[in-house]
Parts: sequence; C-alpha cells; structure tokens
Amino acid sequence: MNDTELYIFGRHPVEEALLRNPAKINKIFIREYINAQSIKNIQRLSSENRIPVVHVPGRKLYELVGKVNDQGVVAQMSPVAYYDLDEWLIEKCNIDEQPTLLLLDEIEDPHNLGAILRTVAASGIDAVILPKHRQAPVNATVFKTSAGTAGLVPIIRVTNLNQTILQLKGVGFWIVGMDQNAPKSYWEQDYDMALAVVIGSEGKGIRKKTLEHCDFLINIPMANEVESLNASVSAALVCYEIKRFKSKND
Amino acid sequence: MNDTELYIFGRHPVEEALLRNPAKINKIFIREYINAQSIKNIQRLSSENRIPVVHVPGRKLYELVGKVNDQGVVAQMSPVAYYDLDEWLIEKCNIDEQPTLLLLDEIEDPHNLGAILRTVAASGIDAVILPKHRQAPVNATVFKTSAGTAGLVPIIRVTNLNQTILQLKGVGFWIVGMDQNAPKSYWEQDYDMALAVVIGSEGKGIRKKTLEHCDFLINIPMANEVESLNASVSAALVCYEIKRFKSKND
Repeated sequence: MNDTELYIFGRHPVEEALLRNPAKINKIFIREYINAQSIKNIQRLSSENRIPVVHVPGRKLYELVGKVNDQGVVAQMSPVAYYDLDEWLIEKCNIDEQPTLLLLDEIEDPHNLGAILRTVAASGIDAVILPKHRQAPVNATVFKTSAGTAGLVPIIRVTNLNQTILQLKGVGFWIVGMDQNAPKSYWEQDYDMALAVVIGSEGKGIRKKTLEHCDFLINIPMANEVESLNASVSAALVCYEIKRFKSKND
Repeated sequence: MNDTELYIFGRHPVEEALLRNPAKINKIFIREYINAQSIKNIQRLSSENRIPVVHVPGRKLYELVGKVNDQGVVAQMSPVAYYDLDEWLIEKCNIDEQPTLLLLDEIEDPHNLGAILRTVAASGIDAVILPKHRQAPVNATVFKTSAGTAGLVPIIRVTNLNQTILQLKGVGFWIVGMDQNAPKSYWEQDYDMALAVVIGSEGKGIRKKTLEHCDFLINIPMANEVESLNASVSAALVCYEIKRFKSKND
C-alpha cells in the first residue's frame, strides 16, 4: 500500500467522485473479469469525463489500497485540481496580458513532469496543458518532485492536443514548437505575444501533426553532436528565456 | 545481479584494478567481518587513491555480482575514465581560451547527475569536477540518464573541493557560485573570462566555506515564491547562459 498516494475505493465512493469531482481523478483501476453490469455507471461516467480506465489483476488493487473491500474498483486521485480549458480561458485568461502556456505532449516520466511543474511555477508561466492520455498524470511522485510547487500554477487537462491548439489559436495564442530541426534558436525568437509553447517527448519530439500547427519552430543549439536534452531541461531553457524576454520588456 | 553495472570481484582482480586503473574505480564494497589481513593491500591502495570503501553484509555483494566467488571484495567500475585535476590542467587546459568548468557539490541523485552531464556536453562546457565523497559517482544509471553523452566531456574527480577551487584560482580561473541570496541574477553576470561555476545540492545549496571562495555569486530569478529548482535545471540555465554569452562574443 502506497500511503503517499490518494486513492478512493469501492463502487459507490468512486461513482460519487466521478459525479462530484471528475477533474481530480487521474485514473480508474478495475479488477479483471469483474461483472460488467456492476460497473456500468462507472464506465459511463469515466467515458463521459474521458478519464483513463485500466483493467488489472486483483493483486494490483491490493498493492494500491491494501486489504480493504475495494469491490474491484479503485480511483487514483490527483493531489491538484485540474482545470478544464474553457473554464481557464473564461475565468483566468486575459489575452491582452500576453499570457504564456506550456503544452506537454507525452512526458511519461513523473520525475521529469515534477521538475517541469516546478520550473513552470518559478518562471511565471501562466498555465500548463497536459493531455489525458500517453502522459504522466500529476500523482504523488510528481507532486513530491515538484517540491510541492505543482499546485501553484493552473494545470489544464485536455483530451486532444491538436484540437486544443486550434482552439488556442482561435482566441489569439501563437504556437511555438521546440524542434531540433528548426532553422532558428530559442535565443532568436520574438516572445512579445500570447504564447503556447509545445514540448514533445524526449525520444520522439513533437508529433508530426502537432508540428504542422506550430506558428514558430525553435531549436536549442547543441555542441558535441548531442541530439537532445532531458525534457525538463529543454522546458526550463525556453521558460526562462521567455521570463527574461518579458522582464526586459516590462 | 545488476548486469548494466560493471563490477570486478575477488581479491586479486580488485587489487590489480587498483594498481593499474584506479581512476576508473567508483567505489569498493567489502564484506563485513572479513579477515582484515586478507584485504590489507586493498585497503592501502584504496586509501592512497582516496577511493571510497564501504563495508556491507554478504547479501549486498550477492545482489551486486550474483553467485560468484567474490572473496568478500567487489569494485564498482565507472563507465567513463576520470581525469586527475593536475593531468587535465597540464594536458587539456589553455587558460587563454577562457575555458568553462562546472563544479558539482553533493549532487547525490544519479538521474540529476546524468541530466547535468548531458547538458554539459550539449552546452560545450570544457570539463566537470566531481568530489569523490558525498556525491553520486558516474555509474550505469548516470550513464544511461545522460543518454550516453557522459564520456564526451572530461570528468575530473577531486578529493577536496575547496582546495581545488584555490588551485583553479591560482592558474587564472574565476569562481562563480549559484546562490539564491546573491544580489544579482545569472542574466547580469559577465562571463568573459576563464570560469569555474559551482552548483550546490538542491536542498542545502553551496556549503558556507565554498561560498566564501567564490568571486561572484548569482541567483536565478523566481516567481511564485519558489525557493529552488531541480539541480539539473539550475545547472542547465547557467551553462546555456554561458553558451549564449560566448557565442555572441565569438
């Protein structure tokens, strides 16, 4: 049992959480071969809220919550509240103030995500966008690696990164992609606008379709034929470049 | 048994490694309650070369090398060759070319060290200095996290960081310390000189005595009252600031 992680177990409690607070659920674990009828509502609510559901052996549930009557259903809760994109755009975003967003795509390592969230808070980025799938959720490890700073900046969870980018363009954001094949460096970019910066996964970079949506592509100059940096390092370099740029222009 | 790590075991092979190639040994493990007479030479050679020796239960040796006749002695080898400071200064260092060194103090997390070595290679830093004690050695995890770049830049191992700093000052290096209480930011520092930049541990920063040896202290501006960044992020920001500075002045 992992007591630094917050879990809710049992059919009724998980159903309640899905109804009342779906934005705080990272993931739902369901015991293999469970009676499908018994979890019909949970399946439907998870699907409506696009919360990942995984089917696992009973022993996995035991590892998560110990010897309790879990009824084959466990929800992993996030230590932070997630925003919905529409909600953030309406309540928090003033495009005239040229906000900066960081969009993460497929950052699967929780230590990297924790380090990125800490840098985001320190560099004054306005919000972070995380896809719900193929991406580490904000769990206890992430929260700990962020040194407790993970809640300081709004975290927006989205289902489809490309649709999100189109929506952001629609309200006035310019999209910047970090790409080693870009013709110019992050030192040469103009950051005097509302920005959404896309950071791809370490190995694969930004996905092709997402790259096509970018208004600007920038690289990080590298010596010794090094091909990529740790994702948290790439994110930090561009976040702080924007911070420097904006502090000069204030 | 951890097969990504390179180990030498047995009294005679370890003694040979100590005689022939002490710069490639990270650490020596000795079984508790071993007959002291049987490892007299190993103790002496380790001490002469200031290689850390730890006494561990027999089961720890089994975890390291599996079921072999280890005779109670195992040496963990580094995947990279370490330089000696004098050797590097004589063979590799031309002070007129204004080289940049990174000095790490108490970076205990191997993932952080790996990410730092990768950034060091990518940013064109000339060498890294690591203390032998209270500091993660370059092991297989570090090498893997560095994405194989750990051998691209010379790594110098030293016994005493403060003596090393005095020696570096003596040959013309200026010492820069990263310290959140510094009066100016890393954006404002002049880097037009031979530099040795000291990065302290995440929690504690640079030790007091080392701080006193610094010619310049610089901070990283932080929003949201964040107090510190991941050590690999701090190191990356200053390494790339120096790279930018030097590329403008070329």
